[in-house]
Amino acid sequence: MPSVDPRLMANAVRFLSMDAIERVGEGHPGTPLGAADITTALFARHLKFNPADPLWFDRDRFVESNGHGSMLLYALLHLSGYEKITLDDIKRFRELGSRCEGHPEYDPTCGIETTTGPLGQGIANAAGMAVAEAFLNRRLGPGIVDHRTWALVGDGCLQEGVGHEAISLAGHLRLGKLCFLWDDNLMTDDGAIELASADDMPARFRLSGWHVQEVDGHDIEALSAAMLLAKSDPRPSMIACRTVIGRGIPGVEGTRAAHSARVLRNHTEAAREALGWNHPAFVVPDDVLGAWREAGRRSLPEHEAWQARVGALPAEKRRELDRLREGRMPEGWQDSLRAFARRAAAERRAEYGIKTSGDLVDLVAEAIPELVSGAPDLEGATQHKRRMGAFTSSDRGGRYVHYGIREHAMGAMMNGMAAHGGVAPVGVTYLVFSDYMRPTLRLAAMMGLPVRFVFSHDSIGIGRNGPTHQPVEYLASLRAIPNMLVLRPADAVEAAECWEIALTNRTGPSSLIFARQPLESVRGEAGANLSARGAYVLAEAEGGARRATILATGSEVALAVKARATLQAEGVPTAVVSMPSWELFERQDRAYRDQVLGRGTARVGVEAAVRLGWDRYLGEDGGFVGMSGYGASGAEQELFEHFCITPEAVAADARKRL
Amino acid sequence: MPSVDPRLMANAVRFLSMDAIERVGEGHPGTPLGAADITTALFARHLKFNPADPLWFDRDRFVESNGHGSMLLYALLHLSGYEKITLDDIKRFRELGSRCEGHPEYDPTCGIETTTGPLGQGIANAAGMAVAEAFLNRRLGPGIVDHRTWALVGDGCLQEGVGHEAISLAGHLRLGKLCFLWDDNLMTDDGAIELASADDMPARFRLSGWHVQEVDGHDIEALSAAMLLAKSDPRPSMIACRTVIGRGIPGVEGTRAAHSARVLRNHTEAAREALGWNHPAFVVPDDVLGAWREAGRRSLPEHEAWQARVGALPAEKRRELDRLREGRMPEGWQDSLRAFARRAAAERRAEYGIKTSGDLVDLVAEAIPELVSGAPDLEGATQHKRRMGAFTSSDRGGRYVHYGIREHAMGAMMNGMAAHGGVAPVGVTYLVFSDYMRPTLRLAAMMGLPVRFVFSHDSIGIGRNGPTHQPVEYLASLRAIPNMLVLRPADAVEAAECWEIALTNRTGPSSLIFARQPLESVRGEAGANLSARGAYVLAEAEGGARRATILATGSEVALAVKARATLQAEGVPTAVVSMPSWELFERQDRAYRDQVLGRGTARVGVEAAVRLGWDRYLGEDGGFVGMSGYGASGAEQELFEHFCITPEAVAADARKRL
Repeated sequence: MPSVDPRLMANAVRFLSMDAIERVGEGHPGTPLGAADITTALFARHLKFNPADPLWFDRDRFVESNGHGSMLLYALLHLSGYEKITLDDIKRFRELGSRCEGHPEYDPTCGIETTTGPLGQGIANAAGMAVAEAFLNRRLGPGIVDHRTWALVGDGCLQEGVGHEAISLAGHLRLGKLCFLWDDNLMTDDGAIELASADDMPARFRLSGWHVQEVDGHDIEALSAAMLLAKSDPRPSMIACRTVIGRGIPGVEGTRAAHSARVLRNHTEAAREALGWNHPAFVVPDDVLGAWREAGRRSLPEHEAWQARVGALPAEKRRELDRLREGRMPEGWQDSLRAFARRAAAERRAEYGIKTSGDLVDLVAEAIPELVSGAPDLEGATQHKRRMGAFTSSDRGGRYVHYGIREHAMGAMMNGMAAHGGVAPVGVTYLVFSDYMRPTLRLAAMMGLPVRFVFSHDSIGIGRNGPTHQPVEYLASLRAIPNMLVLRPADAVEAAECWEIALTNRTGPSSLIFARQPLESVRGEAGANLSARGAYVLAEAEGGARRATILATGSEVALAVKARATLQAEGVPTAVVSMPSWELFERQDRAYRDQVLGRGTARVGVEAAVRLGWDRYLGEDGGFVGMSGYGASGAEQELFEHFCITPEAVAADARKRL
Repeated sequence: MPSVDPRLMANAVRFLSMDAIERVGEGHPGTPLGAADITTALFARHLKFNPADPLWFDRDRFVESNGHGSMLLYALLHLSGYEKITLDDIKRFRELGSRCEGHPEYDPTCGIETTTGPLGQGIANAAGMAVAEAFLNRRLGPGIVDHRTWALVGDGCLQEGVGHEAISLAGHLRLGKLCFLWDDNLMTDDGAIELASADDMPARFRLSGWHVQEVDGHDIEALSAAMLLAKSDPRPSMIACRTVIGRGIPGVEGTRAAHSARVLRNHTEAAREALGWNHPAFVVPDDVLGAWREAGRRSLPEHEAWQARVGALPAEKRRELDRLREGRMPEGWQDSLRAFARRAAAERRAEYGIKTSGDLVDLVAEAIPELVSGAPDLEGATQHKRRMGAFTSSDRGGRYVHYGIREHAMGAMMNGMAAHGGVAPVGVTYLVFSDYMRPTLRLAAMMGLPVRFVFSHDSIGIGRNGPTHQPVEYLASLRAIPNMLVLRPADAVEAAECWEIALTNRTGPSSLIFARQPLESVRGEAGANLSARGAYVLAEAEGGARRATILATGSEVALAVKARATLQAEGVPTAVVSMPSWELFERQDRAYRDQVLGRGTARVGVEAAVRLGWDRYLGEDGGFVGMSGYGASGAEQELFEHFCITPEAVAADARKRL
């Protein structure tokens, strides 16, 4: 136990934060000042961590879900000894190039376990981390994985829908090593919490099966005792820590201004006076810094013991652990996918997109034992969970999470699992419901997390469920997300290829887009992974130089093939280009792209979706056959006729551009 | 009170539903069969409605939030006498052209008050309708507006985050005329509710201040009594109706299969046997149909009395009521916007985008007394709510809703307000948070609702908050939504023009996109609304035929103007095209578009966002200066330099394409 009064340690957090915010002229002082005592109690007494080995696989995870209070996290990390968060970074808080960015950006090598800022995401990430922990604890044994996940939580996180989804599900799954520390300061950016909420928040947690305590958020001993109790309870825990926002600045603390108002020199001076902190800006006295560094070394014995246990593992187990930590797939994971592709190429059967999707999830789940999946209340409709057992409060060995009707929580929990490491999260739902989890898709892409989504029911091809369930703008809106790999296979061969690409992509999320309706076979061979180039000539023009090029994705590729047959029969040499992934195509060299696109030929794009983005490949005189508005409720084939997405329409469009 | 046993009326609902679902071979029988008794109690005893006047402004609103059970709604509407829902429509359930679509599609002329299907939306729409009612009740008086909003709710709606947001806020706002009827059937598509939730749902509502009752959902008398009690309580009410899913089909009722499994002939036969319903498919016996039609006439005296009160209104009040019902703006509403534009054109001041945005919201709020707005916990940062009072549980005259940190609920409640009519909802938040409400943007566009969003902080120009708060893909993803009008003004003149366009657009939503940083003046005149053409030549090339065209939107237009000056100085006749709205530009004729775009000239697009979609205007040899990945945390001007979005970069790009 450090010999320095922990209140001084908390004040060191306060003044580093305050000085940094004052210096740059902006930031959110409310959280760093208000929650300094809470987090000091955690870091100095309970958090299992080792700043000298930030990637220690069995460390406790700490998430600052109210990410706007980022200086709190940077101060804690710097003080406790993370070398990559330097005093200079703190002095350059919010300056270009500083690691101390406006909001915490995912970088576990310096203790930032996830990107936070968009509210509610962090606590749902934390729930995902706790799932990963429980799963790996069961799989690798408690000697290898046995840690807690802590999240500092603000009112915003608890008002956002995704927060509610995570609370309900974490309670239901009885994630006992998850603990939320609620910075209950009664204040939001707009003013007093009661402007917008009168919820009994402790009751909110209790009704979902959480263990709840309420303590003085400035009493470090009481906080520490509550954390101890939380650790001993088998339920997830919420500690409501009543705090004064911006605590420490006379005249500002406890007011709305403390949330995000500017901190001026006279504020920091008054705080120094009030708290008896007689040190210049950015100076932490040696004894206090020493106590913090001692706190950072507190878990060394546990770290050493863990290393010893890992060192004593049988070679095979050790290799497995290393593989999981590094996020590598098991040897030969591609084999079954490739065999599937070869079989599909040989058989050339038309197959429901959804059946192919389900078959492939089965295959990859079998090949990758750390794959953890789920399809929010659509396991039947998406043909998912045919072989995986459920991950439940009583069975941590299952690999299928019943997320309930909570797509947003699924996305955020997948991000948490991927950030934790050791599991390979897959999420399955209808393409239209990707909008419910869209903030999480963006964060996965921004963090570069290898999460994989299967979005099925991808067009009007779903038929009678009508326009609410028929995506038209989703391919475009997914393609707009930087670092999101969008893959829309045309048939079972491309589907297997796309899965292999998605699992190979370790630097960002992948979206696999599947039709519900039958996909006719368009590929009779399955040698090289043609989808890996993003777009390729599926059928070259015959009988002369190419005069027309039809570009298509997914279910519309078979339609393009039929249109080509018509045009060829009319003596128009026509090529079909299948474009499963625009992002991959953009990575090819100019010569390849020009050759595939057939610049100078009559070009027509076909996709049962909006045109946005297609012009890049069609040139200024190209045509497009697709959707310009929402779908309708009716039989699938009737809908394609109704919206004029037919081989005839494509051939006609090409013809007039010759 | 009808003389027929109401249980027979409920069975009429069951058999119409079952027969329709059997006929088409798909649909969701669980809800129509399980909730037939609940809704019969409502329609036959409590709902204030008049099928002969579906648009009666003071009717109760009924929302089937669990929209997948759509046959329930169609059966209720047909039986109670809505002429536009014919028996033929029901026989053609889910067929192309039938009004009985897979999910209910908004059409108040036949009793469909909102589009439902994506779960949770309907109950949040209902909360918005209740806000509209409370606001208009205060504004027009209880003689004119005094009705209830009822929503049938499934488990999915209560698990989704948006549902939680709506529950919290409706309780906080004490929307006493809102009543949720929870079809508590313990079953979801995946199986028993306990697979994914153990929440104490009545407690969930109570902690947010709701009145809660629990009744047998098949006991029509008990249900009716609970509804009576709900009506007398000043809090919003939730009636937990314990039901058996798919009630009526032996062997299927109460099972997972009842949710959405196929209904076969042997099922309907067994149900007829079990319920003693000896009528052929689609036949409702005269006495039962008579009782239903009588139920549909139950509110005639109230309807007549209401018409008499409206008829007795002073002429001016009557005109005001008609205006509100028809969704027309007040006379002269554009005047202040036009004066603002003229003043801005004369003064040519650089002004913070966010200041201009706030000024304009003030202006339109003053001009349009039925405008109801809100900016989820960002009233300060978005310079919103400077003059509007708050709409609260004790003051229904306020026009600013403190939504809390609940963007998704805001979007859905705005849709509910617009569907209700009589209010003009505006929602304000950062552009990045539009993702949190994205499902509602799509539904607003699909329903064609005149809702207006102000999305501020629109690029890396926000500076130090970093990438989580810097939109890069959002303009593209909004432009992808059919029927969403996206408007990104370049300066204060265009901003006023865009607001006028948005308020004129009554057939769909509009998104007004604002920079946070200062916008330099680019327009020195404000005569005709140039933004209304979507794109226009802001500065034509000088000194010869145009050789280069720079196309830009928003904050990048001023940058384009600077690049043009450089190129002109070098002797390159260069035009700048401002493109505040792509959608409006697409509506112009080909000649205008070609003239503006300068086909054949060296073209460069500039937008601090991703390229997706831009190629349509740049041709195959055009250039683009913008973002290809996420932003960074730093000072705004440094970021533009860092990401090479500068006049120099634009000029250089144009130069190499000459």
